[in-house]
Amino acid sequence: MTVGVGILGGGTVGGALAHRLLTERQAIADKAGLSLDLRYLAVRELGKPRPYAFPAGVLTDRPEDVVNDPSVNLVVELMGGMEPAGDLVLQALKSGKPVVTANKELVAARGKELIEAAEASGVSLLFEAAVGGAIPIIRPLSESLAGERISEVLGIVNGTTNYILTQMCDNGAPYSSALAKAQDLGYAEADPTADVSGGDAASKAAILASLSFGTWVGSEDVYREGIEDLLAIDISYAADLGYLPKLLAVASDTGEGVSVRVHTTLIPSDHPLATVRGSQNAVYVKGPDVDELLFAGPGAGGDPTATAVLGDIITSSRELLAGAQVPPRVRFGPGRLRAFEEVETSWYLRLEVMDKPGVLAQIAATIGGNAVSIESMVQLGRDDEATLLFITHPSPEADHRKAIAALGELDVVRQVAAAIRVLPPT
Amino acid sequence: MTVGVGILGGGTVGGALAHRLLTERQAIADKAGLSLDLRYLAVRELGKPRPYAFPAGVLTDRPEDVVNDPSVNLVVELMGGMEPAGDLVLQALKSGKPVVTANKELVAARGKELIEAAEASGVSLLFEAAVGGAIPIIRPLSESLAGERISEVLGIVNGTTNYILTQMCDNGAPYSSALAKAQDLGYAEADPTADVSGGDAASKAAILASLSFGTWVGSEDVYREGIEDLLAIDISYAADLGYLPKLLAVASDTGEGVSVRVHTTLIPSDHPLATVRGSQNAVYVKGPDVDELLFAGPGAGGDPTATAVLGDIITSSRELLAGAQVPPRVRFGPGRLRAFEEVETSWYLRLEVMDKPGVLAQIAATIGGNAVSIESMVQLGRDDEATLLFITHPSPEADHRKAIAALGELDVVRQVAAAIRVLPPT
Repeated sequence: MTVGVGILGGGTVGGALAHRLLTERQAIADKAGLSLDLRYLAVRELGKPRPYAFPAGVLTDRPEDVVNDPSVNLVVELMGGMEPAGDLVLQALKSGKPVVTANKELVAARGKELIEAAEASGVSLLFEAAVGGAIPIIRPLSESLAGERISEVLGIVNGTTNYILTQMCDNGAPYSSALAKAQDLGYAEADPTADVSGGDAASKAAILASLSFGTWVGSEDVYREGIEDLLAIDISYAADLGYLPKLLAVASDTGEGVSVRVHTTLIPSDHPLATVRGSQNAVYVKGPDVDELLFAGPGAGGDPTATAVLGDIITSSRELLAGAQVPPRVRFGPGRLRAFEEVETSWYLRLEVMDKPGVLAQIAATIGGNAVSIESMVQLGRDDEATLLFITHPSPEADHRKAIAALGELDVVRQVAAAIRVLPPT
Repeated sequence: MTVGVGILGGGTVGGALAHRLLTERQAIADKAGLSLDLRYLAVRELGKPRPYAFPAGVLTDRPEDVVNDPSVNLVVELMGGMEPAGDLVLQALKSGKPVVTANKELVAARGKELIEAAEASGVSLLFEAAVGGAIPIIRPLSESLAGERISEVLGIVNGTTNYILTQMCDNGAPYSSALAKAQDLGYAEADPTADVSGGDAASKAAILASLSFGTWVGSEDVYREGIEDLLAIDISYAADLGYLPKLLAVASDTGEGVSVRVHTTLIPSDHPLATVRGSQNAVYVKGPDVDELLFAGPGAGGDPTATAVLGDIITSSRELLAGAQVPPRVRFGPGRLRAFEEVETSWYLRLEVMDKPGVLAQIAATIGGNAVSIESMVQLGRDDEATLLFITHPSPEADHRKAIAALGELDVVRQVAAAIRVLPPT
């Protein structure tokens, strides 16, 4: 009843996991009914100081040896990035070893190939920790909700940007100082690009969409924009209109195809996701039978993520010990992707305009002339300083882009100062 | 790749499920990669009018024939209640057929025996729909969080009482009229006892606790009180103090044993569960590594519950088709239960007192003399009409009961008009 575990990657999650496998071995055995034996932890630099001590022989800098060692029954990939992680995972699966990974980038890019390799070998590839840290969402989507025709998934799946946006909302801080604070506190990395540009969220959105709709969506299929251009003044105006900003992952299947996108979105302040603050994550699932489901919790961090990985290790070990061919958990049917330009979006627009007679008529004609209709309008200030705020009704993304470009060409419009997508109230 | 499904019980959930198996057969096949063939729907009265039409031969009034028919590979039990449901489930499992059930009463009472019977036959017993309707919570607790040392689970797991309490909070309605409205709208049954007395929530609490702590907790081990005695005036006072009432299922393991209870609880108005309104359900999970997780959604209803059942059917069918011995998903270790009297609770107390010098000193001495300490006190009114509101610090339930009894004996106390447990702010 012992499973030999080999961990690839000795960073925050790998270190925390290895430590728990050693210190909680008896507790896991009592609760889960199986014995997990940490055989290896493959790290980049053997000599680097570490917060935990490991028994002799556990640390190695040769990940390929971990995958090949016959005493390793199950491989845990926590290196991150595409290579060598991808080939090591594939090699493990092909040799009949189940794999647990937290690598969203890898799963979003090569998930279909890896899942098929796992199925061909009759073993599991589990990746609960790839989205939402400790929040159980992969298993609920792919198993519990396998019978639901999910129509929409909305996710706050990047803690760094949610922390920054919460700071901007609470304190009126500009983006740059909220980012600096996030970096000081360790919520953002020195190079924050992957988080603030939406890249990390896009990988997670691709995974959520693939599992929700049973149609493979790769990270390259996800439209993405980051939060870098958001101004404090628009957060303030949006609050007055009853909205607040989130970097939202949106995956929808309207029956005309699957669309997946990540962008700054103004959500109604009474939406369930509006309560998700700071570095918290949450996923909101909509379907005709389940109506609305919400899953929320810590989206990152060594200990929460290690818990998600450990849950997958226990599931996979139970399967190993049952000696079973593992049934497939997910399956990708035909389905088709829908171009973002066709998808209906709503927008908040802030125009800096000259205030003279006929200006509003000219602007309204330009918006309407591009098949976009206005839900509400507010005018602030007068004369040379006039600001117009618009919220538009849903219409195709392409029409909105044309309308925004046309507004920028008008002589009476000094500047289209902000254009942010809006989640319409449900 | 076809699985023959036999459903026992043609009520709201059974009818909705049978209808979906017939009408969504192709969609399920596309998404899940398997074909589910509805063989039987066992109902109580064959002649009763039904909202859906079924093919000839599907309806039967002989549930034992469904279990025994060799064309039925998988049994779905939606009859509810203890018998004959329990023996039919046991018979199916013993004959090597996996079972999916939504029957919380049965699982809470005989779950250990049934899970062991399933394990002995190498098949699954799945019951995602038994708690929280469409909210995936059973699988997350027993699989995703198998590696977490969960310390506390708080659940709003009865939609009827949550609807009634939300009405009382929003409109200041008394219990009786909020109950009548819930009955009018179909949220409460003509005999609401099982809901309002906490019995339904107690079964669900027992299941949540068993899975969270890996220690078997039967429904008879759950302390329970209902919401029937709650007065609108105390909801109003509690709101002023920053609290609102929920019928809360509380399962905790403080290291000194597992305690499970269901009772009206005043929770801080900024607690994540405070946003769960109307007939919604939610489960909140706390642990040292995951910190806080929240799962929320519709807790009952034919369509949401049918989705949860269908997810279990698909999982179980995939296992059947893989031809595997199914590994155990849960395991009950030793662990011990803790008597509720030893558990630390906090209370809201409303005393109607005579307002004369020395009264407060006498009351404070009585509370302190029973090893309970006061967190805050508010005096309302004067003279003959004086009301004192206390919130106490956590101390053992037994001490609180003694203090409350002793307060009732004091001459200066006209009445201990309300005593409601409080969830301390975290």
